[in-house]
Amino acid sequence: MLQLGLVLCCLTFAASIPDPRQREALIQLESSMQTGGQMVLTDAEQELDAHFFKMKQEEMARAAFPPAVHFFRARDLIRRSPIFSLLQEMPKGGALHVHDFSMVDVDWLVMNATYRPHCYMCCTDNQSIRFIFSSRRPKPLPRCSPWTLLEELRAKMVNSTDLDSSIKQNLTLFTEQDPEEAYPSQDVVWDRFEQTFAAVWGLVTYAPVFRDYFYQGLTQFYLDNVMYLELRALLPEVYELDGSAHDRAWTLKTYRDVTEQFKNQHPDFFGARIIFTVNRGVNLSVMTEVVEEAMKLQRSFPDTLAGFDLVGREDSGRPLWYFREALSLPAERGIELPFFFHAGETDLEGTDVDQNLLDALLLNTSRIGHGFALVRHPVAKDLSRKRGVAVEVCPVSNQVLKLVKDLRNHPAAALMSENHPVVISSDDPALFGASGLSYDFYEAFVGLGGIKSNIASLKQLAINSFRYSSLNPKQKIEALVLWQRRWNKFVSEHV
Amino acid sequence: MLQLGLVLCCLTFAASIPDPRQREALIQLESSMQTGGQMVLTDAEQELDAHFFKMKQEEMARAAFPPAVHFFRARDLIRRSPIFSLLQEMPKGGALHVHDFSMVDVDWLVMNATYRPHCYMCCTDNQSIRFIFSSRRPKPLPRCSPWTLLEELRAKMVNSTDLDSSIKQNLTLFTEQDPEEAYPSQDVVWDRFEQTFAAVWGLVTYAPVFRDYFYQGLTQFYLDNVMYLELRALLPEVYELDGSAHDRAWTLKTYRDVTEQFKNQHPDFFGARIIFTVNRGVNLSVMTEVVEEAMKLQRSFPDTLAGFDLVGREDSGRPLWYFREALSLPAERGIELPFFFHAGETDLEGTDVDQNLLDALLLNTSRIGHGFALVRHPVAKDLSRKRGVAVEVCPVSNQVLKLVKDLRNHPAAALMSENHPVVISSDDPALFGASGLSYDFYEAFVGLGGIKSNIASLKQLAINSFRYSSLNPKQKIEALVLWQRRWNKFVSEHV
Ligand SMILES: [Zn+2]
Ligand SMILES: [Zn+2]
Repeated sequence: MLQLGLVLCCLTFAASIPDPRQREALIQLESSMQTGGQMVLTDAEQELDAHFFKMKQEEMARAAFPPAVHFFRARDLIRRSPIFSLLQEMPKGGALHVHDFSMVDVDWLVMNATYRPHCYMCCTDNQSIRFIFSSRRPKPLPRCSPWTLLEELRAKMVNSTDLDSSIKQNLTLFTEQDPEEAYPSQDVVWDRFEQTFAAVWGLVTYAPVFRDYFYQGLTQFYLDNVMYLELRALLPEVYELDGSAHDRAWTLKTYRDVTEQFKNQHPDFFGARIIFTVNRGVNLSVMTEVVEEAMKLQRSFPDTLAGFDLVGREDSGRPLWYFREALSLPAERGIELPFFFHAGETDLEGTDVDQNLLDALLLNTSRIGHGFALVRHPVAKDLSRKRGVAVEVCPVSNQVLKLVKDLRNHPAAALMSENHPVVISSDDPALFGASGLSYDFYEAFVGLGGIKSNIASLKQLAINSFRYSSLNPKQKIEALVLWQRRWNKFVSEHV
Repeated sequence: MLQLGLVLCCLTFAASIPDPRQREALIQLESSMQTGGQMVLTDAEQELDAHFFKMKQEEMARAAFPPAVHFFRARDLIRRSPIFSLLQEMPKGGALHVHDFSMVDVDWLVMNATYRPHCYMCCTDNQSIRFIFSSRRPKPLPRCSPWTLLEELRAKMVNSTDLDSSIKQNLTLFTEQDPEEAYPSQDVVWDRFEQTFAAVWGLVTYAPVFRDYFYQGLTQFYLDNVMYLELRALLPEVYELDGSAHDRAWTLKTYRDVTEQFKNQHPDFFGARIIFTVNRGVNLSVMTEVVEEAMKLQRSFPDTLAGFDLVGREDSGRPLWYFREALSLPAERGIELPFFFHAGETDLEGTDVDQNLLDALLLNTSRIGHGFALVRHPVAKDLSRKRGVAVEVCPVSNQVLKLVKDLRNHPAAALMSENHPVVISSDDPALFGASGLSYDFYEAFVGLGGIKSNIASLKQLAINSFRYSSLNPKQKIEALVLWQRRWNKFVSEHV
């Protein structure tokens, strides 16, 4: 910004035809200020950039511009976009904001998880479904129909396609219906979000599925050319067929072991770390206990546990400030427990919840989840920039959860125009009918960036995903070296 | 911003419970940075502010939050809002971005203008209507039905309520239908915008109507407690019943005379100035002629003509840079012709049209019309701030013309959070089913500002409307004194 100040101070606006060179200089200056604007490109990268530019102009000339359309309707358009194909192949670095039980597409959940033996299902009063695996008939669930064993149900059917697709619809927000009608308000979509989450719960917290689900999740991100993951995980008590349950340490250990196994089988995958999360609906004393446990887990699994966060809808939950005593415990004791707070995923301006951004920073958060409201908070924005606290931007999520309709109006467009520290992530891809990172990269590159963003922006975003990760400096360098090799290969294969 | 830098540099984020006083200081700092944040309030103003705050909290707690709803559906909600009633009574200062033929509500146009004798109407091929006043039967219009004399048509009817309401619908974009269905895209709404404009044309360019329309326009703004107007006017050749036409100087002179007449009858009205506008669809040689004429008019009517601007949809018109030679003429000749360019009323990022913001500034514009894209242009934004080039924010217009759906996401929310020079205006109120300034003040105060904006923001916005007006320093002081008297009266009457 110093550079900008200097250039602007030197400018005299002559009372004559504006000097085209001065104009060009200002356009260049602005371009150099955006995400990736300082990046020096190789000849090959410049060549590929010209290709991207051409594709983007064609994309903008089409009748329907996908970032302006609700993702549920835009998904097919995006899938047909040559830019999207290229972004899928592009090594995107790490995904730093993804939740544990929305990594894997619902097809897998239905065709793999629900087809396992001992899978019971019931229907709740409010049109949702619940699952449980059990070696004997499970106890009835309040406000739910009697349990049906899926193997028995399917055995009675000529084919179970309809059943399977109706189960699928219950496990994701994605719908072929008009999304505006299906989800007319934030309240409705968040309510469905929570129901869907509850429906998935019984499937993914069953130990054999839990392991396979995570392995499958890593696979899907890996196939989308993501090489590193920071997973926000509730670390639930995972259960076995006999009803016995494992503790959180077991769950965390399982994440670690499955990651190791996956890395052994995919040497160019860098790894995954866990951000322990708790729902912001709990009270202060529960939060205190959970923070205590987080510190314990952090000590026991320093390589796996990256830190701590609160989840659930900000607007209806308690603000960070309410939990300040619990969240200050680690600092008071001199124990390091990095925070990765969701903050500013709201359009309520000036309310208590809207103070979460500032409070996240005061509590020394390492990154900000969403930060949708950041542009309306100049002090918080400045702190985030000066202290390198990156904003995890999840465009598809913000659109589906109705914070913004046309992604060209996403506030991160402004953040990217001034190279504010940001990373792109996908939040809950399976719930939104997305997968991996490519859809969000597409929305960020084409929607938020417009014609302005280029291959340097993409490269910067990938590099940011390591720079602002929880990895230690040595690991960051290793990851970047690994990524650079794959990036060079990608560039050389596409020019 | 210096203050911010200092405070933030002094901050050390202690590794303990965040200090509530430090937190409070940062919240105060952020609050002091917003529009009106530096304003010192009287006791009475503070009392009224508490009242505003309470009303706003109640407004936000309601089921439907008007700024999140399309204005056509929100209008009734807004009309029932006690905040809106108060804003109507509040002296709002000047309206600096209003177009000539959308000042007066369509009821007046239909019930007054079309009921005058000699008014002919025809229907175009594409379902629009055209008007002409003529002492004899006018020549047929291409692609239009034969002319019907409205007096004759109405005389044949039992009552003409249906006819009148169908005419009304053709003279405004406002509709009781679902606005999303009626106007599914920017292209559709702009097309209807232009048709509506063409429909109004034959009515308002008829000399007797022209005069009365402007007088009525001043009246409606005056009744909405607006005391000053800068009107963007095409200065068309106004016609008489015999088909003869007046030149631009006559039109400008008429604006001046009607304004004088209105001021004589309303001594607390400060006046109106004209910004001569031309459609950006013209070519360079026409633009050159128009700029020449603008300079001439400026010399002849220095008190009335404030400056020059281009109108019409930016996305489909020529960019400012295309016209640079014509627009540089005044500066080259050392003649003062202030510019008030529409710029950045677009969500096309990085295109030629998207350079209009920077080019407007390079061409030394005095203000920026809309500047919707400004937050994505850090260099232009910085120039606008440093040089005090205010952004004319028209929230209702931007929503109806589909730049933004939920006004909480309007980029001027970020501008107002850092006291960027802005004024609030209403663009084409009659076309949008609005009137005066109060609807846009409501959207800015409640939608853009959220709970954060307060009576100081309102006061600042009113003061800005003089500070960034085209008035000379002496006039500004006079206007401010006049306004302050009315403001004090308003405050004392409402506490
Ligand atoms: Zn999240
Ligand atoms: Zn305008």
